[in-house]
Amino acid sequence: MQFAGSHILSISQFERADVEQLFTVADAMRPYAHRRRRTCVLDGAILGSMFFEPSTRTRISFGSAFNLLGGEVRETTGFEHSAIAKGESLWDTARVLSGYSDIVVMRHPENGSVAEFAAASRVPVINGGDGTNEHPSQALLDLYTIRSELAGRERDIDGLRIAMVGDLCFGRTVHSLSKLLSLFADLRVSLVSPEALKMPAEVVDNLQAAGHQVLETDALEQGIADVDIVYSTRIQEERFASREEADLYRGRFRLNQSVYTANCEPNTVIMHPLPRDSREGARELDIDLNDNPNLAIFRQSDNGVLVRMAMFALLLDVADQISEHDAPVNWCTERRF
Amino acid sequence: MQFAGSHILSISQFERADVEQLFTVADAMRPYAHRRRRTCVLDGAILGSMFFEPSTRTRISFGSAFNLLGGEVRETTGFEHSAIAKGESLWDTARVLSGYSDIVVMRHPENGSVAEFAAASRVPVINGGDGTNEHPSQALLDLYTIRSELAGRERDIDGLRIAMVGDLCFGRTVHSLSKLLSLFADLRVSLVSPEALKMPAEVVDNLQAAGHQVLETDALEQGIADVDIVYSTRIQEERFASREEADLYRGRFRLNQSVYTANCEPNTVIMHPLPRDSREGARELDIDLNDNPNLAIFRQSDNGVLVRMAMFALLLDVADQISEHDAPVNWCTERRF
Amino acid sequence: MQFAGSHILSISQFERADVEQLFTVADAMRPYAHRRRRTCVLDGAILGSMFFEPSTRTRISFGSAFNLLGGEVRETTGFEHSAIAKGESLWDTARVLSGYSDIVVMRHPENGSVAEFAAASRVPVINGGDGTNEHPSQALLDLYTIRSELAGRERDIDGLRIAMVGDLCFGRTVHSLSKLLSLFADLRVSLVSPEALKMPAEVVDNLQAAGHQVLETDALEQGIADVDIVYSTRIQEERFASREEADLYRGRFRLNQSVYTANCEPNTVIMHPLPRDSREGARELDIDLNDNPNLAIFRQSDNGVLVRMAMFALLLDVADQISEHDAPVNWCTERRF
Repeated sequence: MQFAGSHILSISQFERADVEQLFTVADAMRPYAHRRRRTCVLDGAILGSMFFEPSTRTRISFGSAFNLLGGEVRETTGFEHSAIAKGESLWDTARVLSGYSDIVVMRHPENGSVAEFAAASRVPVINGGDGTNEHPSQALLDLYTIRSELAGRERDIDGLRIAMVGDLCFGRTVHSLSKLLSLFADLRVSLVSPEALKMPAEVVDNLQAAGHQVLETDALEQGIADVDIVYSTRIQEERFASREEADLYRGRFRLNQSVYTANCEPNTVIMHPLPRDSREGARELDIDLNDNPNLAIFRQSDNGVLVRMAMFALLLDVADQISEHDAPVNWCTERRF
Repeated sequence: MQFAGSHILSISQFERADVEQLFTVADAMRPYAHRRRRTCVLDGAILGSMFFEPSTRTRISFGSAFNLLGGEVRETTGFEHSAIAKGESLWDTARVLSGYSDIVVMRHPENGSVAEFAAASRVPVINGGDGTNEHPSQALLDLYTIRSELAGRERDIDGLRIAMVGDLCFGRTVHSLSKLLSLFADLRVSLVSPEALKMPAEVVDNLQAAGHQVLETDALEQGIADVDIVYSTRIQEERFASREEADLYRGRFRLNQSVYTANCEPNTVIMHPLPRDSREGARELDIDLNDNPNLAIFRQSDNGVLVRMAMFALLLDVADQISEHDAPVNWCTERRF
Repeated sequence: MQFAGSHILSISQFERADVEQLFTVADAMRPYAHRRRRTCVLDGAILGSMFFEPSTRTRISFGSAFNLLGGEVRETTGFEHSAIAKGESLWDTARVLSGYSDIVVMRHPENGSVAEFAAASRVPVINGGDGTNEHPSQALLDLYTIRSELAGRERDIDGLRIAMVGDLCFGRTVHSLSKLLSLFADLRVSLVSPEALKMPAEVVDNLQAAGHQVLETDALEQGIADVDIVYSTRIQEERFASREEADLYRGRFRLNQSVYTANCEPNTVIMHPLPRDSREGARELDIDLNDNPNLAIFRQSDNGVLVRMAMFALLLDVADQISEHDAPVNWCTERRF
């Protein structure tokens, strides 16, 4: 994949080499995102941030990533009511709006809409989520987090043992992550879900076709033993056929510190796409895990900034110029709390 | 007109020399808007963008124009509910908000409101549209587009032959454009509309008083023959007295490629204020014109950025300093799609 | 108080020396806020502006203050509906969102929420108003305005004579201002309100414990005689027990030019937290005071920018570096209206 001047619409565009190139650039973004240095490599560039569906953290994460590279952000949130009511096509909208910026990130409630917009756009477009279809930066930040967490252990994604837990049927994140994992070698994937919320067969087939070992179970304790990563997702009660079925599984996929201690290898990393439900009785990840150093959920959201910076740097082809345009941070980054 | 430190509230402020000065500055903005160069001439300046009525593209166009000059944008969209509910006057609102920026662009649903705000403002104010009253940057970008399209043909606005098509009675854009055209010489203006939606007599009188030739017709084919520009606008069915009258005119003001080929001179330029209705059966400009190189509607919206950059540069008196503060663009502007 | 790397959540954090330090820095911000000079001391820094409750002017004032120091602003307005609906805790929200910026300003409708957010934040947080609880920048800009207005008269806050007028029971601003005034010496405070809307006893006790003289009255004429400052606030009719009681006080706390001339010392300064009600019959400060040079209400809102710039400069520890990163303003700041 040639990044410069392209769109990022789907993780299907990515070969293993593309993922590795993106992650290498993301690594180079750490000093800037962690505020040891600052860069103005994109000084003068404009991001058009178009969130036709609300998603506060994805929107801010992309916007901050662009600011961290020195660029400006022009934002739209909510629908363009007037133009749509007047019958404007997405093609026209794209021709017009793409004239206002150097690159666009777009979120839209309808599947396929971002690709349709990109087809008419005159600047690169990043898909920030189009309905239930794709959200490539989320899948990439998940994989980047796995790689980062393992790196400290002298391990790589090849050979990874991972458990995915929760609603594997409707959860977009686990499908996309599985697709990316298929690019790597020798994985063991535990799929832990209620029978009714199993991973779709094609996703499983795809993992197996890539040579990975797949285990399906509805027993959390068994699924999370002997893995490097537990990737937990929420189960929405309304996904079950009946209240009785929902009750049957209540609490059976929740991870807390005692379940962790009893079943997981030491240092098993805990991930989650966030937001997590922290209400009493509804937890997918108990708050008693907050002090567990292997809880990686906030490192995961932090990594989103790195991955999005890397996307911008590659599509606009400035990855090689960043250190030419950098300077030390001159404000206080130490905390008194 | 002395631009520096002034407001732009109405096209009535403009003499021919002012329009020409603005357009000369807009021409000079091309390298920056087209991303061959960048400038930071307004580095440190703040635009207060106050859209008390939604208008996504006008808002983004102004914001991007200010960013392209190096300035920052602080935006407000929607009404200031709390203050208005508490009985604050627009005078007080203006005194407060004008203290937060170096220049203001404001859109407001009520006629005259922007001028009222400007009267209390301590910084220059640009009218971004006040109800059905004025929207000077739209009229100016329309005229700038006419000038740009003709320039490639060694022609000027003087001597222009233009057809305005559609709802000429309620359309603000064609009234404002006509007013600006009165500043130029020897035009021939074809006004093509249903009888019920004719151009108001005072607008026609004004054009004739300026020495222009005016033809009124309800026959599209006749009106668009022998012109340099067709300026199309939409006709809202609810403007007609009855459904029967609306049906009578259905489709009779739609321009498509075959109507164009049959009636227009080669290279007749097609304009439209956008958004256009692209739904089946409701088209004012058919999508089969999309490949016609004379369809100027997206160049028109692009020109809006140039004209707005010129407004900012003139009101803040930095037009002469732009090239002192410029640099090449260092990111990729070539596209792979 | 050590500002660098801290939160500002409550005026209770402030000792007299802290207030004086903040005000000295605010004074140094004048050339930048008044656009004689510009500074890029925070070039590369990002403010996360999170207004979970609307407050247009507080939001823009903080945003402009950060821009005036050279930083970027990423804004959120309205509630994060999706995450809250999914049961995310404020702790999680704070862990995630604080990873996207260098400093946060937050407004939230619930008392205590900003402190709760700050407890989980990884960057300094400024309370931009949490329900009826605290709004420290408002109290500080009020006190800064008192100091500025007196400075021209060779006077200081010590020895100040001030009248607070209106709803002293429910008005957050007068409680916070009283708290700050307790840090100074030898004040005389006139409290002018309807009996039903008297200043809470603990606020009065606190003023007296600081050695100040307190007078309580429901007679405006008496209360505003012999003072340096009249601080007026609005009275909402719904605060009274009955319509009859409201009617009894109607108009009795309104200040206009003739009441001012008849009762106030020359040069008595008039303040108000804004917005003021300018509707007929509902005025707390009559618009006939608009030409009175002692009406300080818009200088007050302007001072908000200075105080907020000072907060940012101190929390991020760049107050000493500002003049190293400054330049003249190169755009026109003279006005033609």
